[in-house]
Amino acid sequence: MRLTRLYLPTLKEVPAEAEVVSHQLMLRAGMIRKLAAGVYSYLPLGLRALRKVEQIIREEMDRAGGQEVFLPGVQPAELWEESGRWAVFGKELLKFKDRHDRDFCLGPTHEEVITDLVRHEVRSYRQLPLLLYQIQNKFRDEVRPRFGLMRGREFGMKDAYSFDADDAGAERSYQQMYEAYSRIFERCRLRFRPVEAETGAIGGSFSHEFMVLAETGEDSLVSCTACAYAANVERAEIGPARQASPAEPERPLEKVATPGMKTVEEVSRFLGVEPRALIKTLLFETEQGPVAVLVRGDHQLNEGKLRRHLGCDLLALASESMVEELTGAPMGFAGPVGLKARLLADQAIRVVRNGVSGANERDAHLVHVNHPRDFQPATFADLRVAAEGDPCARCGGEQRVSRGIEVGHIFKLGTKYSEAMGATFLDEAGRERPMVMGCYGIGTGRTVAAAIEQNHDEHGIIWPVPLAPYQVYILPINVKQGAQREAAEGLYRELTDQGLEVLLDDRDERPGSKFHDADLIGIPIRITLGDRALKGGRAEVKRREAAAAEEVPLAEVGARVLELVRG
Amino acid sequence: MRLTRLYLPTLKEVPAEAEVVSHQLMLRAGMIRKLAAGVYSYLPLGLRALRKVEQIIREEMDRAGGQEVFLPGVQPAELWEESGRWAVFGKELLKFKDRHDRDFCLGPTHEEVITDLVRHEVRSYRQLPLLLYQIQNKFRDEVRPRFGLMRGREFGMKDAYSFDADDAGAERSYQQMYEAYSRIFERCRLRFRPVEAETGAIGGSFSHEFMVLAETGEDSLVSCTACAYAANVERAEIGPARQASPAEPERPLEKVATPGMKTVEEVSRFLGVEPRALIKTLLFETEQGPVAVLVRGDHQLNEGKLRRHLGCDLLALASESMVEELTGAPMGFAGPVGLKARLLADQAIRVVRNGVSGANERDAHLVHVNHPRDFQPATFADLRVAAEGDPCARCGGEQRVSRGIEVGHIFKLGTKYSEAMGATFLDEAGRERPMVMGCYGIGTGRTVAAAIEQNHDEHGIIWPVPLAPYQVYILPINVKQGAQREAAEGLYRELTDQGLEVLLDDRDERPGSKFHDADLIGIPIRITLGDRALKGGRAEVKRREAAAAEEVPLAEVGARVLELVRG
Repeated sequence: MRLTRLYLPTLKEVPAEAEVVSHQLMLRAGMIRKLAAGVYSYLPLGLRALRKVEQIIREEMDRAGGQEVFLPGVQPAELWEESGRWAVFGKELLKFKDRHDRDFCLGPTHEEVITDLVRHEVRSYRQLPLLLYQIQNKFRDEVRPRFGLMRGREFGMKDAYSFDADDAGAERSYQQMYEAYSRIFERCRLRFRPVEAETGAIGGSFSHEFMVLAETGEDSLVSCTACAYAANVERAEIGPARQASPAEPERPLEKVATPGMKTVEEVSRFLGVEPRALIKTLLFETEQGPVAVLVRGDHQLNEGKLRRHLGCDLLALASESMVEELTGAPMGFAGPVGLKARLLADQAIRVVRNGVSGANERDAHLVHVNHPRDFQPATFADLRVAAEGDPCARCGGEQRVSRGIEVGHIFKLGTKYSEAMGATFLDEAGRERPMVMGCYGIGTGRTVAAAIEQNHDEHGIIWPVPLAPYQVYILPINVKQGAQREAAEGLYRELTDQGLEVLLDDRDERPGSKFHDADLIGIPIRITLGDRALKGGRAEVKRREAAAAEEVPLAEVGARVLELVRG
Repeated sequence: MRLTRLYLPTLKEVPAEAEVVSHQLMLRAGMIRKLAAGVYSYLPLGLRALRKVEQIIREEMDRAGGQEVFLPGVQPAELWEESGRWAVFGKELLKFKDRHDRDFCLGPTHEEVITDLVRHEVRSYRQLPLLLYQIQNKFRDEVRPRFGLMRGREFGMKDAYSFDADDAGAERSYQQMYEAYSRIFERCRLRFRPVEAETGAIGGSFSHEFMVLAETGEDSLVSCTACAYAANVERAEIGPARQASPAEPERPLEKVATPGMKTVEEVSRFLGVEPRALIKTLLFETEQGPVAVLVRGDHQLNEGKLRRHLGCDLLALASESMVEELTGAPMGFAGPVGLKARLLADQAIRVVRNGVSGANERDAHLVHVNHPRDFQPATFADLRVAAEGDPCARCGGEQRVSRGIEVGHIFKLGTKYSEAMGATFLDEAGRERPMVMGCYGIGTGRTVAAAIEQNHDEHGIIWPVPLAPYQVYILPINVKQGAQREAAEGLYRELTDQGLEVLLDDRDERPGSKFHDADLIGIPIRITLGDRALKGGRAEVKRREAAAAEEVPLAEVGARVLELVRG
C-alpha cells in the first residue's frame, strides 16, 4: 500500500481525551476515532492490527477443536429471564424495546444465546463434547468508559463456550482452552501471565485471567518468585505469616491515652511504633449479625475473601451508632480485648507480638496486646489483600505484585446455565443430565491496545511482528529523486511478491516528517533509501526497536527483511 | 472436517416457520437458527458460506481502491439529527437510551457515521477521492421480518462510501462500484442483472439495484429484450404506445346504462369489451389541489411516477365525498369527458380508440370515447407500472418482466449528507466545497440466501463452487469396511493437502441417510466409495447438479476433482 493512498490521518498533538499511552498512540497513529463515549471506529491501520489478532485466535480455536459460529448482537429478554440475569446483571446490560414493545438487550456476553442454541440441537452424549466460538462485537454500558479500546462500551471479543457430559470432560475442555490461550498470546509475542481470578457476573466455580504485563495496566497480579502460583490481587491467596524468631517476649498489657488519635497513621506516629504493630478492628453489619475483623495496621482487608469466608450477601461497614453500641466508644477506638462481638482475624494477626489496638474507650489505646493472652478470635483466616513480599500460599516463597492488562478470561461454569435453561442430554445409560459448561473470552481490541501498552517508546508504537498492520516500511528520502524512487518501487514489488505486507512512503514530504510517521505507526522494519547509501548500492535496514540501522546491499535487502520478519 | 465432529444439526422436516425455499433449506441444512423474529444465529456451515461471500466482496472492494474500516453498530442520535433523518427514518430505526439517558440508535446504515468521520479528517482535495467500506451487522426494525436471512432485522451488510471533489469524480466512483459489483456477483457465479432503481430512505439522485434472478424473488424487474435497459418495476420507464395500424375509425360518443357496475372487471364483462378498452379515472388529493389521472383499464398506476411528475408530497386517493363533489356521481363512475379537474393521462391513453369511461353520472358509462375529440388532458406522461410486453423507453423494443432478489444497491448521493453535516474540503483554488458522495451496499446474508433460491432442487441446495462451505464431500458407504475407510481417509488427506475444503462423512449411518445429507447441504462434488467400484480400483465422482456419477480410477480422483472445482 502506498502512503499517498492510505487513509491514515495521523495527529501531531496528543489528544486531550486520551489518558493512557495505547489510547493516545492509536489516535495519533490514525488507527481509531471516537464516535461516542466508549464507542470507536476502526480506521484501516487499526482494523488490520485487529484482524491479525482475530486470525491468530481463529487458528488456535480451530486447532483446539472449536467451530466458529456467529450469534446475534440483539438478544431477547426471555432468555435472560430464564438464566436469572435479566434482573441482576445491572446497568451494564443495555435494555431496549423493539417496535412491538418486546424487551431486548444488546449482548454483553452470549451464555444465554449459546445455551438456547445448543439445548435445541444436542440430545445425546454422542454429540458431546462441543466447543463453539465466535468473534463479534459486544456492548456493555460501562458507567465510565475510558482508556480507548481498553474499557469501551462497544468492543470486540472472541467468546467460546464448551459443553461436556461430565466434570472430567469440562476439566479437559478448560485445560485445552488454557493451553490454546497460552499459544495465542505467545503467537502475538506478548509477555503475559495466566492468573487465578474471580468469576464476577459470569459466575461459575473457577477462572483464570490472562494478563499482558504492563506497568500501565489497570489490574494488579500477584505471582510467586519461587513457584508457578499467580493470581489476580482480588483473588490471590496468602500463606501463613511466619513468627519472628526468636519471638519477642510478651510484655504486660497497658492502656495509654491517645487523645483524638483514630487512624493507623495518627496512632503509630503518636506512639512511635510501625503501622505493622497495630491491630485494626473493622466492624461490619451482616445478615448474620455484627462481625469484628482484625487486620494488621499495614495490611488491607480483602472484602471478597471476607464475604466468601462468611458466606454472607450483606457486608457493610458498621454505622457510627452501631460502633458505639458494640464498643462503648466512638469510632476509631475499637479493639479486640473484651469486645463483645463475633471476632475474626486475618492470619497475620496470630503472630503480632506486643501489638497496639483500640481500648474500646474514647481517646485510649492498649499497647502490648498479645494473642491468645488478651483476645481469642473465633477463626484465623486469609482475609487480606496480597501485597509485595507476602508469603506464597502454595510454597511459602515470596510473592511479587505486578501490573497487567486482562486480555483473556476463562471460566468453569459448571451447570449454572444448563440447569437454569434446561440444556440437558441423555447419557449412555439414557438418563437426562445437564451439560457441564465452560466459557472463554478474549478482548480482541483490548489485546491490540495491550500490545501497544507493552511495546512502545517516546516516538510511538513498536509492533510485535505478528500484530503489525504492515511488516515493512519503505522510506525513500526524496521521491523526486529518480534513483531513490526506482529503488523504492523495485523493493516494494519484490517484497510484496514475497508475501510481505509493505507500506511505501511515496509522499513528497520532508524526510523528518516521514521518519516521524514511520516511528509513530511502529512498522517493525524500515528500509530507508537515501542518496549516500544508494551510491554504494546499499539501503538502510532498521528494526523499529533497534537504536541503529544496518547497511545492506540492495540485492540482499529482501532476504535480510524476510529473516528479520521470520526471526 | 469430519462429519462426526462437525456441528451440523440437520432437520428432516420442513420447518413450519419457513415460507421460502432458501429459508427452509438453510434451517434444514443446519446453517442458521432463529433467535427472535428476524434475528438469526449462523452455525458453522452457514458462517462458512457467508465468509465466502464476504471474502469475494473484500477482494473486489480492495481491487477497486477501497479501504476497509469498521464502524460502530451503536450510533449517537446527534448525528442523525444533523442529517435530518432522526425524525423521518421511521420505526425501522431502533432508538434507545443509554444509562445516562442519552439517545442512541442501532445503525441501520452508516451515512451519518462515515460522514462524521471523514469531515474531521479530510481537509483538502488532495485527500480525495476516498472510498471506505466495512462488512458489519446492521439492524432495521422491520415491521414484518420474514423469509429468514432475506428480510431479517439484524443482518450482514457490506457498505461502502465514496467521497469525491466533484460530480465527474463521483460519477467515476459510481461507475467503478458498478463494475466491482458486477465482478462480485460474477465471481459468486450467480445469474444477476443490474437495474435502475428508486433511492428510498437513503436518498440521492440515482441508483442501481443488483438483482439475483430467481422466480421466488420478492422484486419485479423489467428488462428490454432488444437493448440493455433494465429497471426495478417501481422505477421502469415505458416507451410511448404505438397507434394500432390501420387506426380504427372514431365512432360517435354514446352513453350506456351500467347499473351498479363500478370496477373495470364489472364494466368490461357487462359491456363485452376487453379491459384494455377502458379508461380508468383515478382522483387524488394533493397539496396542489385535486388531480384526475387516466390509466388504461388493464394498466396499473405507478404512484412513484405520478408523485415525481407532480412534485407533490401529499398524494392520497380522493374521499368518497370529494369524488361526488368533483364528478357529481358516486365512486365508480368518474370519467374524463366534461370533468372539471386538473387532468393527467398515462401516455397509453393517447392511442385508445373508442374507449369506455365513466359518465360522471350514477349507473352510466360512455362508450366510443376518443382523444382529443372528447377530452384533452393537460399532459400525457409515463405514469403506469411497466408490464410484460410494454415498449422499451430507450429503443421501443419489447419489455419482459422477471422476478429477482435485490442483493446490492448503489446510490449517487450527491451532497445530501455532506451539506447537512458540513463535510467540506478546500479545492485547488482554496474554496470550501462539500464533498460529493456515493454509497454502495451488498446484503451478505441475503446473497447467500439468494444463491440458494437460484440454485437448488427438491433434494436440497446446489452450491455454486465459490460460495460452497466445503467443495468436496467424501462418502464411504460403510465406514466399518476397512478398504472403504482407508480409501476415504487417503482421499481426505490428499484433497485437503491440495488446499481443497473437504467434508469426510465418517458417520456410521445408513447410506441412504448419508446421501440424503450430502444432497441437502449441497456440496458441489461428491466422491462415493463403495465395495463394487473399489474392487475395480475406482471411486464414483458426482457433481451435485449432475444426474449421473462418473467412475474414476482412485489415482486420478484428485486431478478430476480439482478440474471440476476449477472448471
